[in-house]
Amino acid sequence: MIELYTYATPNGKKPLIMLEEVGLPYTLKKIDISKGEQFSPEFVKINPNSKIPAIVDTDTNISVFESGAILIYLAEKTGKLLPTDTKARIKVIEWLMFQMANIGPIFGQLGHFRRSAPEKVPYGINRYEKETFRLLGVLDKQLAENEFMAGEYSIADIATYPWVLGYEYVEITLDAYSHVLRWIDTMKQRPAVQKGMALFSES
Amino acid sequence: MIELYTYATPNGKKPLIMLEEVGLPYTLKKIDISKGEQFSPEFVKINPNSKIPAIVDTDTNISVFESGAILIYLAEKTGKLLPTDTKARIKVIEWLMFQMANIGPIFGQLGHFRRSAPEKVPYGINRYEKETFRLLGVLDKQLAENEFMAGEYSIADIATYPWVLGYEYVEITLDAYSHVLRWIDTMKQRPAVQKGMALFSES
Repeated sequence: MIELYTYATPNGKKPLIMLEEVGLPYTLKKIDISKGEQFSPEFVKINPNSKIPAIVDTDTNISVFESGAILIYLAEKTGKLLPTDTKARIKVIEWLMFQMANIGPIFGQLGHFRRSAPEKVPYGINRYEKETFRLLGVLDKQLAENEFMAGEYSIADIATYPWVLGYEYVEITLDAYSHVLRWIDTMKQRPAVQKGMALFSES
Repeated sequence: MIELYTYATPNGKKPLIMLEEVGLPYTLKKIDISKGEQFSPEFVKINPNSKIPAIVDTDTNISVFESGAILIYLAEKTGKLLPTDTKARIKVIEWLMFQMANIGPIFGQLGHFRRSAPEKVPYGINRYEKETFRLLGVLDKQLAENEFMAGEYSIADIATYPWVLGYEYVEITLDAYSHVLRWIDTMKQRPAVQKGMALFSES
């Protein structure tokens, strides 16, 4: 059984999509970051960096934090969505890293400067909007040549989709990225993606 | 033979430290980002995201971009610095992701706002300095309980060291982080780390 400690953010949705895709049994544990629950001593034991998501695998007593590491752990546990062939495998890992080190941090900073910052900082908005569009251009080009980010559907797509779907939150349009739009249409037809994206929407 | 396309930045130094640690033969290919060489059509074929570092493994004809993916590729190719035991392995991957998604982006943004931005933006400086110190606190606590980030020396340490060593560049001190300072002393005694950190220093 996987215990998933999470909240309804882009990073928080990734492991739920994955758990639904691979069909592992899990229990959801809501960590309400709007109430600072990620700083509780119990949660810090699971993730010393005080961020969701994190998991505890009660089969093995292994805990994992960082959404990218959780996706790799679940893929290796089940043998799904991360190939074992060397070339196919590293393509998935590099596009997963592209999300972890680029799409996530940059979309996140744009969201902060546009939506959360207590003062208007035009330099910050412009900086991160420009880089967001550059990254979308890289993704669009990749998706022009591949059905999914690394060829076959993989944990790279699961990691990236919740962030790109935040385009309305960061107040941009995807009109210039037709291949990204096609990929979104494909992704949103997957039941696991639908289930993951609806995380805590009942509450 | 590994062809390493790189430049003297924190991310650029990681794969050189790794290549020296594992003893693989390599050739250095300098991509001068101060001249925009990362945007050349030849380099974009290797990394569509136009960032260093990247590698081409001429044994397998596999190219890899994203420094975190390169470290995993070289570790899996050589069986070094990334354990195969499930628990030890995922600890390395989560601390590698901690660097890729946190230490790298946040130190990088602090460096931008403090050193590169064409205008002084106090909000940006304060935001990223505060988060840099928070991350150093997380790292310090981990290193209080472990000799290296994930227990044994691993690709997580190789990924993180060049960024933390940039503390002078981002104009902060590490005085409050005694365990980080102890870890730096240990790391800098490794010949591979010395060689990697001296990348292109002759030029």
